[in-house]
Amino acid sequence: MTYDAGTYDVAVIGAGHAGIEAGLASARLGCSTLVFTINLDAVGNCPCNPSIGGTAKGHLVREIDALGGEMGRTTDECFLQSRMLNRGKGPAVHSLRAQIDRREYSAVMKHKLELQPNLFLKQAEVTALSRKDDGVWLVETRMGAVYTVKAVVVATGTYLTGKIYIGEQSWDGGPDGMFPAAFLGASLQKLGVRLRRFKTGTPARVLKSSIDYTNLEVQEGDEPVVPFSYDTEKPGKNRAVCYISWTNEKTKRIILNNLDRSPLFSGKIEGVGPRYCPSIESKIVRFADHERHQLFIEPCGLDTEEMYLQGMSSSLPEEVQIAFYKTIPGLEHVQIMRTAYAIEYDCADPLQMGATLEFRDFPGLYGAGQFNGSSGYEEAAAQGLVAGINAALKIQGRKPMLLDRAGSYIGTLIDDLITKGTSEPYRMMTSRSEYRLVLRQDNADARLTPLGREIGLIGDERWARFQTKQKQIETELERVKNTILAPSEALNDLLVSHETSPVATGVRLSDLIRRPQLNYQALLQVDPNRPDLPAAVFENVEIELKYEGYIRRQKSQIHEMRRLEGRVLPDGTDYGKITGLRAEAQEKLQAVQPGSVGQASRISGVSPADISVLMIWLARHGEGTP
Amino acid sequence: MTYDAGTYDVAVIGAGHAGIEAGLASARLGCSTLVFTINLDAVGNCPCNPSIGGTAKGHLVREIDALGGEMGRTTDECFLQSRMLNRGKGPAVHSLRAQIDRREYSAVMKHKLELQPNLFLKQAEVTALSRKDDGVWLVETRMGAVYTVKAVVVATGTYLTGKIYIGEQSWDGGPDGMFPAAFLGASLQKLGVRLRRFKTGTPARVLKSSIDYTNLEVQEGDEPVVPFSYDTEKPGKNRAVCYISWTNEKTKRIILNNLDRSPLFSGKIEGVGPRYCPSIESKIVRFADHERHQLFIEPCGLDTEEMYLQGMSSSLPEEVQIAFYKTIPGLEHVQIMRTAYAIEYDCADPLQMGATLEFRDFPGLYGAGQFNGSSGYEEAAAQGLVAGINAALKIQGRKPMLLDRAGSYIGTLIDDLITKGTSEPYRMMTSRSEYRLVLRQDNADARLTPLGREIGLIGDERWARFQTKQKQIETELERVKNTILAPSEALNDLLVSHETSPVATGVRLSDLIRRPQLNYQALLQVDPNRPDLPAAVFENVEIELKYEGYIRRQKSQIHEMRRLEGRVLPDGTDYGKITGLRAEAQEKLQAVQPGSVGQASRISGVSPADISVLMIWLARHGEGTP
Repeated sequence: MTYDAGTYDVAVIGAGHAGIEAGLASARLGCSTLVFTINLDAVGNCPCNPSIGGTAKGHLVREIDALGGEMGRTTDECFLQSRMLNRGKGPAVHSLRAQIDRREYSAVMKHKLELQPNLFLKQAEVTALSRKDDGVWLVETRMGAVYTVKAVVVATGTYLTGKIYIGEQSWDGGPDGMFPAAFLGASLQKLGVRLRRFKTGTPARVLKSSIDYTNLEVQEGDEPVVPFSYDTEKPGKNRAVCYISWTNEKTKRIILNNLDRSPLFSGKIEGVGPRYCPSIESKIVRFADHERHQLFIEPCGLDTEEMYLQGMSSSLPEEVQIAFYKTIPGLEHVQIMRTAYAIEYDCADPLQMGATLEFRDFPGLYGAGQFNGSSGYEEAAAQGLVAGINAALKIQGRKPMLLDRAGSYIGTLIDDLITKGTSEPYRMMTSRSEYRLVLRQDNADARLTPLGREIGLIGDERWARFQTKQKQIETELERVKNTILAPSEALNDLLVSHETSPVATGVRLSDLIRRPQLNYQALLQVDPNRPDLPAAVFENVEIELKYEGYIRRQKSQIHEMRRLEGRVLPDGTDYGKITGLRAEAQEKLQAVQPGSVGQASRISGVSPADISVLMIWLARHGEGTP
Repeated sequence: MTYDAGTYDVAVIGAGHAGIEAGLASARLGCSTLVFTINLDAVGNCPCNPSIGGTAKGHLVREIDALGGEMGRTTDECFLQSRMLNRGKGPAVHSLRAQIDRREYSAVMKHKLELQPNLFLKQAEVTALSRKDDGVWLVETRMGAVYTVKAVVVATGTYLTGKIYIGEQSWDGGPDGMFPAAFLGASLQKLGVRLRRFKTGTPARVLKSSIDYTNLEVQEGDEPVVPFSYDTEKPGKNRAVCYISWTNEKTKRIILNNLDRSPLFSGKIEGVGPRYCPSIESKIVRFADHERHQLFIEPCGLDTEEMYLQGMSSSLPEEVQIAFYKTIPGLEHVQIMRTAYAIEYDCADPLQMGATLEFRDFPGLYGAGQFNGSSGYEEAAAQGLVAGINAALKIQGRKPMLLDRAGSYIGTLIDDLITKGTSEPYRMMTSRSEYRLVLRQDNADARLTPLGREIGLIGDERWARFQTKQKQIETELERVKNTILAPSEALNDLLVSHETSPVATGVRLSDLIRRPQLNYQALLQVDPNRPDLPAAVFENVEIELKYEGYIRRQKSQIHEMRRLEGRVLPDGTDYGKITGLRAEAQEKLQAVQPGSVGQASRISGVSPADISVLMIWLARHGEGTP
């Protein structure tokens, strides 16, 4: 028996990292928003590693924050340890990563959803979705409630038809001991959504006091702590450390001897796993020549003794897990509190979606997160934000928010998903961006906050602070370009002491900053007029100067790319009728329905010659506007 | 496939309120203890009301604390609001009750288990129990692990073969969206344990901001806060308030109109529900002449906007719930975050157990909490403590801890369960004790801490503090009995102002304290030599004086009762062979196998004549020692 449970603008299915951002964005833009969760105690849960950020993922969090999302702020509130990764490398790959308190993160996020006006957080399993003739959607729950909404964001993570595997054992289940969404997958398929099976895994969580720390390498947080959010003025302190250990020949032998008991290798799991976050058994098989693999032992929170064994996910039987974990230095007597497991789940082929993350064939239906074939909390949150914003904008009759590859990692992520599709859980990496010198974590605000403001997710205070910072950067850039230092004994002593050549004539401060051996800090004593500015301003100015040439080159590539992106391909184009396109290109273009010539050019199987044909065709037939 | 997962002294199945106390007690007494939970995120969960204590239940918490249990301390750490109920009534029924922060309580309890030496907290579903010929037990989990243990405490709460009901919908599930224990019930039945179905229910949890507080009665906490634990020297502050509202004719009409959709009344639920904590539909049917029923609106925590509707549990369909909740003043626009539900579960007939909570037919197997047919967190914790202590004492070859009705509510609870059995979830009430003037919450320490010390759960510091307090009570009692106040204008003015007669000759301070119109506080100005003592000492002295006569009478009844309790009936007595017993008495005695003549006398169907027969039989055949 069903009943009419009322009308909302947007329904978000799932309150994980994608659902949270989708729900908050939609509600903050003024849409009445329902967020469904199978269990209110698992809102914003981190069933995998207790950390946010990391290489390229840290960029995503900064971008989410720059657009007005929540992940960065909450991470700043709940972090236990913060590190800026890759400091030894170029600024493009500097990435922030934080260990978080898992239970606190979940509680804080849930509370934010509860307090958000226009948002109603409801515990219920969504069992069916259907679309009425007038375009509205009906969302049905297990309790027989039928909600009428204008848009739906599916953010089901690993819950959709979820199945747990531990060795020979398997059962229907969601992440971290939750119930799966048992009915929605079938409903989506009935609707015509193309689903596939992916899988992921999580390592054991073990008792802190059962670890021998004597010979483990300690990994401390960085001081001072750099926050994720542009809103965080006073970041907290590091409150915990991590540890590093390594597998060895014994680990390898035990795993290889038991491969026949792994559901991954015995064929029980059909789902495709994440290439860049594989189980330890996959790593050992795939990298057969590696003598050892690194693992990180990470705290799950301040109020728990559970430790997470990052890098050691597995679906081997519990007894095999115990045996191989105990071969690892420090874990000789380890006690496993939660057994590692693999989880297989339904997700959608993202080729069915456009850049707004709306399904092309199902107007008003959006996908986000693992449901779209990605992996990772940050990838999920980024898509949730985009889906939630676009659902709201569409309902309000406003133009969609389209993020391109040149402006953000979020744009790159979505473009990759909807253009190339993915045959395995997609993970963001800096190497996926051809513009990574421009898409840095230090300038995410400059790239995206004006857009966030335009959309309506950046408040006045934040906007004023942003403008002040941009003005400071501009003024400081001008100052250092206009400051000329006369040659002096003091200056040349300094230069020589930093192993760079002395000067004989006056030199611009900006040119000194550009020298690889020097930086802002080093030049302090010869720069008496330096204003008192936030570290982020100096960092930005320094990078802009040091990499000016590269950045200029990348910006000109972006210009060319955007020219092609600007050539809009009309929705519903019948590529079979465009003469001159090769058959493969016709087929791929028909399937992907790219939004622009730029997107078309990135589809594998579409050649430069095909692009020329498209350009000619467009010139003849006119084109839409972006 | 199974594997040998090692050997422990005690396995505790379940980490709710019973399992927590059982596990901690066993480990603290030096036994290696495994505590299993289906989900580590639900340790110490409060799936029903977010509060601990209340009439008679508060006594249980004090007694648990006096014996060295954990519930009182943790409540003191996590309370949001504390009240001493029934202050207007006699001291026997003064009862402490605290609202707690649900998520914090769970986190704190879990952390205590994790930090407890000798205790290992493991996430796993126990699927089977079996006993080997040599008396050791095998505990098997879903992951194929087989643990060998000397004793097992079953504390499965509402998880055992749990089933959720909401209107016409039902599914296999544990409390608060957890998985049920799906296999253990069948294993216990195979072993020969007699199980039955009970049911309980939980009301909706609703969004704080959707309530209109304008016309609601506010219920504040008491100041100063009285702690639960004798360990808590500085109790915290009240941090939240509750609200009171009432159902009305409209509520009643909606519920009565939809009774056919209630699984309770349609016959779908076979389980028997708690008489003293019924669903709102049961209350409306049972008390058809009541115009209204009270409900309390209670906060679930400081970091959540969920509010709990105490008194309004239901298994009606969600749409009916929405309709009837909205008839209640304040809830006109209420938004339901978690729908109310009924849960049906397997539990054991407690007549199968002795006073140690060990199954008579299965040595080494103990039951505790809702598994034994009780309801309530406090009843569960009390039994968990007794089962855990006795499992440990037995393993260590020490004499069992037997609590009698005269010494504690815990003893009363267990005696009721194992002697009378229960046909519905058993709830503790002060009226269940015939010695309630002696079994007060203010003297739980005097009654039980020496026993806790003897067993080994009371540390040196706590013991020293206890002894100091008892000494202070004794000294103060002596002082007030020996202090004679001369008649004076000041004294007589005071007496008259309290509407009690003036004195003409010297009067003992103790006799003044005994006067109903007077108390310690009132006599301060005429008692210049009063020492500076804790409030609890004055309270105790005052009660002992005011109720001296009654207490003396109750103590002499206790003496007589204990005489009968001291007449031990040998284990395995064949009552069918005792001539002179009526047939019904033979049958009941055979089933219950009482530990003493005292216990035998409380079995319904055993008459005073039967008791005389037993006494004569005992005198002839000799008896065991207690």
